[in-house]
Amino acid sequence: MTEYFSFELIAQDGRARAGIFHTPHGDIYTPCFAPVGTQATVKAVTPQQLQELGAGLILANTYHLYLRPGDDLVAEMGGLHQFMSWSGPILTDSGGFQIFSLADNRVIDDNGVTFKSHIDGSTHRLTPEVSMSIQENLGADIIMAFDECASPYDRGYNERAMQRTHKWAKRCVDVKTRQDQALFGIVQGGIFLDLRQQSAEYTGALDLPGNAIGGLSVGETKDEMHAVLEAIDPILPLDKPRYLMGVGTPEDLVNCVLRGVDIFDCVLPTRLARHNAAMTEKDRLNLVNATYARDPRPIDESCTCYTCRNYSRAYLRHLIVAKEMLSATLLSIHNLHTLLQLARDLRQAILEKRYQSFVDEYFK
Amino acid sequence: MTEYFSFELIAQDGRARAGIFHTPHGDIYTPCFAPVGTQATVKAVTPQQLQELGAGLILANTYHLYLRPGDDLVAEMGGLHQFMSWSGPILTDSGGFQIFSLADNRVIDDNGVTFKSHIDGSTHRLTPEVSMSIQENLGADIIMAFDECASPYDRGYNERAMQRTHKWAKRCVDVKTRQDQALFGIVQGGIFLDLRQQSAEYTGALDLPGNAIGGLSVGETKDEMHAVLEAIDPILPLDKPRYLMGVGTPEDLVNCVLRGVDIFDCVLPTRLARHNAAMTEKDRLNLVNATYARDPRPIDESCTCYTCRNYSRAYLRHLIVAKEMLSATLLSIHNLHTLLQLARDLRQAILEKRYQSFVDEYFK
Repeated sequence: MTEYFSFELIAQDGRARAGIFHTPHGDIYTPCFAPVGTQATVKAVTPQQLQELGAGLILANTYHLYLRPGDDLVAEMGGLHQFMSWSGPILTDSGGFQIFSLADNRVIDDNGVTFKSHIDGSTHRLTPEVSMSIQENLGADIIMAFDECASPYDRGYNERAMQRTHKWAKRCVDVKTRQDQALFGIVQGGIFLDLRQQSAEYTGALDLPGNAIGGLSVGETKDEMHAVLEAIDPILPLDKPRYLMGVGTPEDLVNCVLRGVDIFDCVLPTRLARHNAAMTEKDRLNLVNATYARDPRPIDESCTCYTCRNYSRAYLRHLIVAKEMLSATLLSIHNLHTLLQLARDLRQAILEKRYQSFVDEYFK
Repeated sequence: MTEYFSFELIAQDGRARAGIFHTPHGDIYTPCFAPVGTQATVKAVTPQQLQELGAGLILANTYHLYLRPGDDLVAEMGGLHQFMSWSGPILTDSGGFQIFSLADNRVIDDNGVTFKSHIDGSTHRLTPEVSMSIQENLGADIIMAFDECASPYDRGYNERAMQRTHKWAKRCVDVKTRQDQALFGIVQGGIFLDLRQQSAEYTGALDLPGNAIGGLSVGETKDEMHAVLEAIDPILPLDKPRYLMGVGTPEDLVNCVLRGVDIFDCVLPTRLARHNAAMTEKDRLNLVNATYARDPRPIDESCTCYTCRNYSRAYLRHLIVAKEMLSATLLSIHNLHTLLQLARDLRQAILEKRYQSFVDEYFK
C-alpha cells in the first residue's frame, strides 16, 4: 500500500474477513478490538497489562489531548507512543465526534467548528487542517479525517453533513505531511442507504490506506446499522481495512464482522468496569449485587484472564463495596479480555471457514 | 524455631542485622519493608505488580477485614492468601491500634475494647481471644498479639497500658491454635526507657517466634524513638525478628535498621501516591506542580522501577491533572519500589559489613 502501511487479506468467509494491517509500530491482526485510551491512558490499566491482554491497537482522542495536555506538549515529549509508553499501534480520531457531542457549545460552518472547552469554557476552532496538524503532533499510526456526524434520521442534515465530510476528507489529504501515518476516510450518511453508498463510493475512491464508517451506534436500531453495513460492504475496497467507529458490544463484533468490518473500538469494557459490571460473551454481572457476597467462583469459569484466574466474585464485590481502586483495574482487565478474546475467536473462525456456524452457535 | 517458622541471622554489622525469616508462604529477607493492604488490597496495585516489585511480606488490617467483608467470609473463601491472591507471606495486626484510634467511639477495660464501627456505627467488642479468632480466620503467616497503645508522654497511662498489653499477650498465647501462624508479642511503654526495657524483658521471655515494637511514630520525636530502640535492642532476643510497627519513611528505615530493627510497614508510599507525591530516597516531588508540565525526565533518573523506566514527569502530571486513576498506580509502584529497594540496599550493606558508611553517606 505504502512503504509504511499494507493490508494483507488472509481469509474471507462470506463477507467476514481475516487480515493483517502492517503499521510502523507493529501488525494489527483483524478482526480487531481497540481499547480506548481517551486521555492517553486506557483507564485503570497499565500498558504492560494491555500488552499481556494481547491488545493490538489502542485509540486516543484528539479532542481531549488537544485541550489537555496539548498536542504540542505531547510532540515535545516524543509523541503519543513515547508519552504514554505504548509501543504498539495507536489510532487517533479527528476530534470531530466529541465536538459535535458538545451540542450547545459549538457552531459548525463549511470551514470547520468553533467550540467551547468542557474543561474551562475557553473557545477553540477545529478545521480539517487543524485536526491534521494536531494528529501529526500526536503521532498515532492511524489518523482520521475530520468529519461531521449527523443525527441518523434527518435526511437533509445527513446530505449536507456527508458533502461536508467529503470536502473535508479531501482537505485532510491535501495537508497531511507525515508518511508514517495512515489517514482513513470516513463514510457518513445516517441510516439512508443511498447516501451511505454514495459516501462509500466517494471515500473508497480517495484511495486511502483504510476506510472508516462513522455515524453509527448513535441512536439508530441494530437492524438499521446492519443494513448500512450490508449496503456499503460491496462498495468499499476489499483490500483495505474497514473500521467501524465507536462500536461495540460483543454482539456487535459478531454481527458486524459478519458484514465485513475489520476494526472496532469502544469505551464500553472500561466504562462498565468502573461501574462494577463484568462482561461475559453474552451477559453482564453487576458485582455490587449481594448475591455475589459469598460466591467463590470467578466472573466466568471459562475465562483465562488474570482476574478470572485469580479472583472470586466475592473478592471483587468486597473491593467494590470497600471502594478500592483495584476493582476498576481487575474488572477492566476482564472486560477488555472478553472483547479481545472474542475478536481472536472470530478471526480463528474465519481462518477455519466456519464463521456462519460460529454466529449461529453464538446467538443460539 | 518451629516446624513452620525459623529465623536465620545471616549477618550483623553493629546492631544492624540481615536475616531470613522462613514462613509457610515463603522466605522474608530482612531488613524488610511490608506494603500495607488494609482491606486485603494494597491500594491501586495488583499482586502481580507487587510480586514484580519484589515485595516479600504484605500487611492487612484485622479491624477493617473483621468489619468488612468479615473474617468468616474470608475464611470461607480459603483465607486471605487465596482471597486476595497473594501467595507470599502476610502479616495481620491485632485490630487494637485502629480501635484505639477511634477516640470517642471506644471504651477500654481490662478485658478488651468495646467500639463503634466507622462504617455504620454498629457496636462491637474485641478481646485478646476475639482478635486471635479473627486472625486465625484471616490466616496470615504472622499474627499480632492484642495490645494497648498509649499516648507516648503519659507515664501513668503507659504503665497501665503496658501491664494490660502483657496480660493480653499471655491470653493470646493461651488461645492460639494454628501452628502455621507465628504470633508476635508487642513491646509497649511510650517514651519511658525503663518501661520499654521492662516490656522487652517480658515480651522476649514469652519466647514467641518474633517480637514487635508498638507505640512508636505516634507523636514522639525521632530522637525519642531512637532512644527506645537503643534501650531495648540489647534485651530483645537476637535470634528472632523484630518488627517496628507502622514505621516508616526512608530515613526511618536507615535509622532503625541501625538500631536493630528487621521489619517495617507503613501506608506512606501508597498514601503519598494517591496524593500525587513521588518519594525518592531523600526527597519528595509533588507532581501536580506546574514545574513538571514539560519535564521529560523520570521521577528519579537512577530508579529502575516500571514507572521510571517508562514515564516522564510530564506524563505523570498529565494523568494527575486529568484525574486518571493510572497516576495512583504508577506513583504507588514507584514509591513502593523506593522503599523495597532501599531495604534491599540496606541488607546488602549489612552483608558487606559497611552499614555505618552507608548511613554516613545517606545522611551526608
